[in-house]
Amino acid sequence: MSEKIDRLFLEEAYKEAVKAYCTDEVPVGAVVVVNGKIVGRGHNKRISSDNSLFHAEIVAIQEACKSLKNWRLDGATIYVTNEPCLMCAGAIMHSRIKRVVFGSLNKKMGAVLSNFRVFDEKGLPYSVEYEYIEDKKSSKILKDYFSEKRGRLDNEKTLSIDLYSGNCCG
Amino acid sequence: MSEKIDRLFLEEAYKEAVKAYCTDEVPVGAVVVVNGKIVGRGHNKRISSDNSLFHAEIVAIQEACKSLKNWRLDGATIYVTNEPCLMCAGAIMHSRIKRVVFGSLNKKMGAVLSNFRVFDEKGLPYSVEYEYIEDKKSSKILKDYFSEKRGRLDNEKTLSIDLYSGNCCG
Repeated sequence: MSEKIDRLFLEEAYKEAVKAYCTDEVPVGAVVVVNGKIVGRGHNKRISSDNSLFHAEIVAIQEACKSLKNWRLDGATIYVTNEPCLMCAGAIMHSRIKRVVFGSLNKKMGAVLSNFRVFDEKGLPYSVEYEYIEDKKSSKILKDYFSEKRGRLDNEKTLSIDLYSGNCCG
Repeated sequence: MSEKIDRLFLEEAYKEAVKAYCTDEVPVGAVVVVNGKIVGRGHNKRISSDNSLFHAEIVAIQEACKSLKNWRLDGATIYVTNEPCLMCAGAIMHSRIKRVVFGSLNKKMGAVLSNFRVFDEKGLPYSVEYEYIEDKKSSKILKDYFSEKRGRLDNEKTLSIDLYSGNCCG
């Protein structure tokens, strides 16, 4: 897959992150792609759904399984704006996704490069390729979300949203 | 929590594993307990629901979040017949479960003692206590399931089911 195509799908994942931002959820988004087509999309819905497991990847994988009527997503790539955590890395393995591309690092809970390197472990029954393709918007939206949560950007919120070209909050 | 009480709840988790066995799913079961009361139960439903993520723990955690109308399961214990995998260990952390008790080891994908020791890692934002309390039935039902899958116990299936005191297949 060329980096240009990877960036196009990361952009789709980012659109999902904006949806999370606009509903006051931690802004992470994901899309699952099979044969160049998006078969599942999702954004973080943990608070709005009262479900601690509804990270963007989980929502996107579930939608992909549903649309393909298959729990196996052989040959799929998942694009996600932030490095997957342990739960999501495990979910990616279990759903037989072949490749994961992420646009920012998750220093607190990242399981691919930051806190764990689970896909580098030998002896696991399923292997997953991964690629970190830096996408500054993906980390910026997270930083802004947490800054705003801490009340530091109260008066700049409208300006921040404009920067994301996301008008769903308007 | 005394071992006697832990074993009582492991027995409830085992009843869930029997349900999975009887629907031809990998037989793992789980219950989530808060203040001595079961608030969520689940068994593996991966194939029947076309959903690669529906491990017993995930189903039980989702039911618990729903019944408590809260994504945080503070102070909860999860009892599971088999050592959690990476995905489920991550899910346990994210849902703020305090303690996990499991009845058998998962040599292929276990993330607590076998392949990874995620709850022993320093620096993660949430800590989870864990305990392995061996429950031979919990490993036996898994062994039998996989043996039968491989066609080695074709004629002994009825006998095996009787041994589990599980009559839901009858």
